Amino acid sequence: MTPTTQHAYKLSDLTKDLDVTIRGNSDCVITGVSTIQMAEVGHITFLTNSLYRKYLATTAASAVILSDTDAIDYSGNAIISRNPYFTYSQIAAYFIDRVQLASGIHPSAVIDETATIDKSARIGAHCVISRFVKIGAHVVIGAGSVILDHSEIGEDSSLDAHVTVYDHVTIGKRVKITSGAVIGSDGFGFANQKGVWHKVPQLGGVEIGDDVDIGANTAIDRGAIENTVIEEGVKLDNLIQVGHNVRIGAHTVIAGCVAIAGSAVIGKQCMIGGKAAIAGHITICDRAMVTGMTSVSKSIREPGIYSSGIIGAVPNHEFRKNNARFHRLEQLIQRVKNLEWSVKKMIEEEKND
Amino acid sequence: MTPTTQHAYKLSDLTKDLDVTIRGNSDCVITGVSTIQMAEVGHITFLTNSLYRKYLATTAASAVILSDTDAIDYSGNAIISRNPYFTYSQIAAYFIDRVQLASGIHPSAVIDETATIDKSARIGAHCVISRFVKIGAHVVIGAGSVILDHSEIGEDSSLDAHVTVYDHVTIGKRVKITSGAVIGSDGFGFANQKGVWHKVPQLGGVEIGDDVDIGANTAIDRGAIENTVIEEGVKLDNLIQVGHNVRIGAHTVIAGCVAIAGSAVIGKQCMIGGKAAIAGHITICDRAMVTGMTSVSKSIREPGIYSSGIIGAVPNHEFRKNNARFHRLEQLIQRVKNLEWSVKKMIEEEKND
Amino acid sequence: MTPTTQHAYKLSDLTKDLDVTIRGNSDCVITGVSTIQMAEVGHITFLTNSLYRKYLATTAASAVILSDTDAIDYSGNAIISRNPYFTYSQIAAYFIDRVQLASGIHPSAVIDETATIDKSARIGAHCVISRFVKIGAHVVIGAGSVILDHSEIGEDSSLDAHVTVYDHVTIGKRVKITSGAVIGSDGFGFANQKGVWHKVPQLGGVEIGDDVDIGANTAIDRGAIENTVIEEGVKLDNLIQVGHNVRIGAHTVIAGCVAIAGSAVIGKQCMIGGKAAIAGHITICDRAMVTGMTSVSKSIREPGIYSSGIIGAVPNHEFRKNNARFHRLEQLIQRVKNLEWSVKKMIEEEKND
Repeated sequence: MTPTTQHAYKLSDLTKDLDVTIRGNSDCVITGVSTIQMAEVGHITFLTNSLYRKYLATTAASAVILSDTDAIDYSGNAIISRNPYFTYSQIAAYFIDRVQLASGIHPSAVIDETATIDKSARIGAHCVISRFVKIGAHVVIGAGSVILDHSEIGEDSSLDAHVTVYDHVTIGKRVKITSGAVIGSDGFGFANQKGVWHKVPQLGGVEIGDDVDIGANTAIDRGAIENTVIEEGVKLDNLIQVGHNVRIGAHTVIAGCVAIAGSAVIGKQCMIGGKAAIAGHITICDRAMVTGMTSVSKSIREPGIYSSGIIGAVPNHEFRKNNARFHRLEQLIQRVKNLEWSVKKMIEEEKND
Repeated sequence: MTPTTQHAYKLSDLTKDLDVTIRGNSDCVITGVSTIQMAEVGHITFLTNSLYRKYLATTAASAVILSDTDAIDYSGNAIISRNPYFTYSQIAAYFIDRVQLASGIHPSAVIDETATIDKSARIGAHCVISRFVKIGAHVVIGAGSVILDHSEIGEDSSLDAHVTVYDHVTIGKRVKITSGAVIGSDGFGFANQKGVWHKVPQLGGVEIGDDVDIGANTAIDRGAIENTVIEEGVKLDNLIQVGHNVRIGAHTVIAGCVAIAGSAVIGKQCMIGGKAAIAGHITICDRAMVTGMTSVSKSIREPGIYSSGIIGAVPNHEFRKNNARFHRLEQLIQRVKNLEWSVKKMIEEEKND
Repeated sequence: MTPTTQHAYKLSDLTKDLDVTIRGNSDCVITGVSTIQMAEVGHITFLTNSLYRKYLATTAASAVILSDTDAIDYSGNAIISRNPYFTYSQIAAYFIDRVQLASGIHPSAVIDETATIDKSARIGAHCVISRFVKIGAHVVIGAGSVILDHSEIGEDSSLDAHVTVYDHVTIGKRVKITSGAVIGSDGFGFANQKGVWHKVPQLGGVEIGDDVDIGANTAIDRGAIENTVIEEGVKLDNLIQVGHNVRIGAHTVIAGCVAIAGSAVIGKQCMIGGKAAIAGHITICDRAMVTGMTSVSKSIREPGIYSSGIIGAVPNHEFRKNNARFHRLEQLIQRVKNLEWSVKKMIEEEKND
C-alpha cells in the first residue's frame, strides 16, 4: 500500500487521551505504523506476542508500545500500556488513509419518497433505499447497497459497497457491515408433503445490536416467526452462515466460514474458531470458547474450551494408515477381549493347579 | 419484527382450501402466528416437535395446528392435520407482510433492446438485463440484479436484490434466488503446462428446474462442456458451492455451507446436512441422507443415512488426549500384538509342560 | 447450452500454433467440443483420464486429442499431444460463445473525475469507479462492479458483474475476478479491553499478481499493517476466505470453500483441496499438496501430500459405533495395560516356579 497522505504526529499527540505512560522523547515525530521486524525510523510499533520479543533489541522503530515487563529490556522511546494491543488500535486510527466522504445522497441513488434519511448521512452511487426505511445520523451507505422496506439503520453505522439488507431489519448504532453481506434473507424452512418440499413463510426479522461488525459475504437469515438476534458488540468475520432464529450473545466473536444452524443460541463473550459448525436448536453458554473446525452437536453448559475431531495434518500415507486403523478399531477391541479371556483362563488354571 | 399491516382472519377462512379438520370455534379471529411457548391471544401456532408438547397445556394461542394424536390432550381450538408443519406453512402465508410490487421496469434499469420481458414482470432499480435475455410472466427481479446474454427466467420466478445470472443460464418456473447468489460462473478448470496453470474454457451452461430455491451467496458454476443441472424442486441453502458439471436430483435439499466438487451427481430426494463436502466425480443414489460435516469421498449406492468423522465437542484437554491416543494407535496395535505373542507362547509352554 | 453461433474450423486451423501432431484428415471440419462418451460427428474431444479409455473404441467424435500411447489404440483422426488436456484448453477457446464487448464507458456508470481509464477498457452499466483509480488497457469491468479509491487494475484483466474492490488494491495483468468476489475488505482484527472488542484499523492493502483467477463470492481481506499478497498465476476457486496478511505463492491452486486464517504463508505451486482450513501464522512450503477437508494446524516444511481427520462416509449406525469406540480409547488402553501387567506377572511367576 502506497500511503497517499502524509501523517506526522508527536508521540505526545498520539497518546494524549490514552491511559499510558511515555518513556523517552515525547516530542519524537511518528509518520507511520509498522510491524516490529519491518519498522523504520519514524514508525511506531507494538509488542504483544512473545514470539516477536527477539526483534525488540534491533527494531529501527522510533517508538514501541509495550507492557511494563517488556519495557525493562528496551531502552528506546516506549509507550507503556497495560493492554498494548488495545493501545496500538487507538494509535493506528490516526494513520487511516481513507478520505472522509461528504454527506448527501448521490444523484444516481434511488430513494423511495417514504424513506427517512438524516441529512448528515451519506448514500453512495447506485444505492436503492426502499419504502419506510430509516437512516440515522452520520450513517454511510456504500455504492450499490440495497436496503428494503421498513428497515432501520442506527446512527454512525456504515455499510460498505454491495450490502443487501432485506425488509424489517433493525440495525443498531456504530454497526459496520462489509461488502457482499446479506442480512435478512429467508431462513431455510420447508415442509415436506408427499416427497415435495414447500416453503414455510419466514415471518420474523433480524435485530442487530450496537457496535456489531459483520464480515464480507456473510449471510444472516431472518427468523421464521420471531427475530434472528445479534446482540451488541458481536464481531462476525467473513463467509459466516447464521441460520434463522439464531441468537448470538453480546461481545461474542466468530471467525470466518463458521456455520450456525437454525435456532442455535450462543452466549455472551464466546469465541468461536474458524470453520466451526454449530448444530441447530442447541445452546452454548456464556464465555465458552470453541476451537476452529469443531463441530458442536450438543449444548455446551459450562464455560471452557471445547474441540472435536482429529487435528494435525500428517503425510498422506500416514493418514491412510491412521484412517485404516480407526476403521479397524472394532477388530482391535475383539483382539483385546480374546486376550482378556485367555489370560483370565490361564490365571484360573494356575489357581487350580 | 413490528408488524406493519393488520391481519385478521377467521379460522375457517385460513383453512378453507386445506385438507384439515377444525375442532372448536371456527369463527375465532386470528391476527398472527407464533411459537407455542410465546403465543398470545389471537395467535395461531403449531406442534410438530415432541420437545414442545409440554407447552400445549399452557399456551395462550387461540388455535393450535396439530396431529390427531396430539389433539387428544388439547381442549382449545384445534386444526387437526395429517401434516401439521405443512398446514402451518400454508396458513402462515396469510401473514406475510411484504408488499406485492407493481409490474413494470424501473427507469434506472438498463435493458438491452434485444431482451424480451413479459409485461407482467417487475424489474427493480439498477438492474442490468443483457442481450437476448427472456423474462417470463410475473417474474420479479430485485434491485441491482444482473442477467447476462441469452439467459432465460421462467414465469413466477423471483430473484432478490444483487443476484448475478451469467450468460446461457436457463431458470425454470417459480424459482426463488436469494441475494448474493451467483449462477453460471466459470467452473474451476485449469490445465497445467510446465508448472503454470492455463484456463480451460467453460463452455457449458446451467439449467435450473422449476420450483428450485437458491440461498444467499450460493455459487453455482457453469459446466465445462455440458451443463450443470439442478433438477426441479431442489432446495439449496446459503453459501453452498456447486462445482461445474454437477447434477442435483429432483426434490433434494442441501443445507448451508456444503461444497459439491465438480462432476458429482447427487440423486433425487436426498438430504445433505450443513457443511458436508461431496468429492468430485462421485455419485450419490436417490434418497440418501448425509449428516452435517460429513465428507463423502466415495459413491453412495444404497439409500440410508451416511456420516463420517468424529463428532462431539469435548473439553479441549480431553480432545488433546483423544487426539494423542489416535495418533498412537499403531503403538497400541503393536502392544496388543506383543501380548498375543506372549500369551500364545505361554499357552504352548503350558501344553508342553 | 444451446450454441448461439455457428463454429466450423478445419482440424489444421485449430492446431496451427500448437505443438501437436495431426494424424488422419487434417481438413476434417470441427463444429464443437464434447465429452468422449457424448461426442457426435463434427465434435472434437480428448482423453486424459484412463477411466474414459473404454469410450475410445466407440466415440462418434470426428477427432480426439490424446497422448501417443493412447493413440496406438485409435484409428480415427487424432491430435497427438504430450499434454492432451492443455491442448484441449487451447482448442476449446475457439468455441467460446460469448460476444466480445465494445470498449467504452456505459452512460450509467459513475466515474470519479480523478480516475484514469484507458480508452480501450470497457466499463459496464451501473459500475462505480472512485477517486484516483487506474484502469489499464483492454480491461473489462462487469455490470455493477465497484472499485474504490487508489486501486489499480492492470491491462487485459476482467472483473465480472458485482465485484467489489476496496481502496488501495493493486491488481496485475490478465487477472480474472468472478462475480461476488470482495477484495480488500478489512481484516478481522479486534483488541479486547475489559470484555469489549475494539476494532484494530486495517492499514495494509492487497496486491494481486498477474494471471491470477479469483472465484465467485471469494473474500480477500486487506492487511493489518503490510499487504495481503496473492502472487502471480494463483488460482482461487469460489467461496474462499483469505485472511489479512496472508501470502499465497505463485502458481498455487486452491479449491472451493477453503479458509485461510490471518498471516498464513502458503508456498509456490501448492495445491490445496476443497474445504481445507489453514491456521493463522503458519507456513506451508513450496509444492505441498493438502487434500480436501484437511485442517493444517502446524507449518508444513517438506513438499509432499498432507491430510488430516477421518475419511470415508459410512452408514450412520456404523459411524456411531466408531465414534463411541474412539471416545472409549482410553478405556481400551487401560485394558491393554492391565493385560500387560497380568502377563508380565505370569511370566515372572513361571520363572520363579
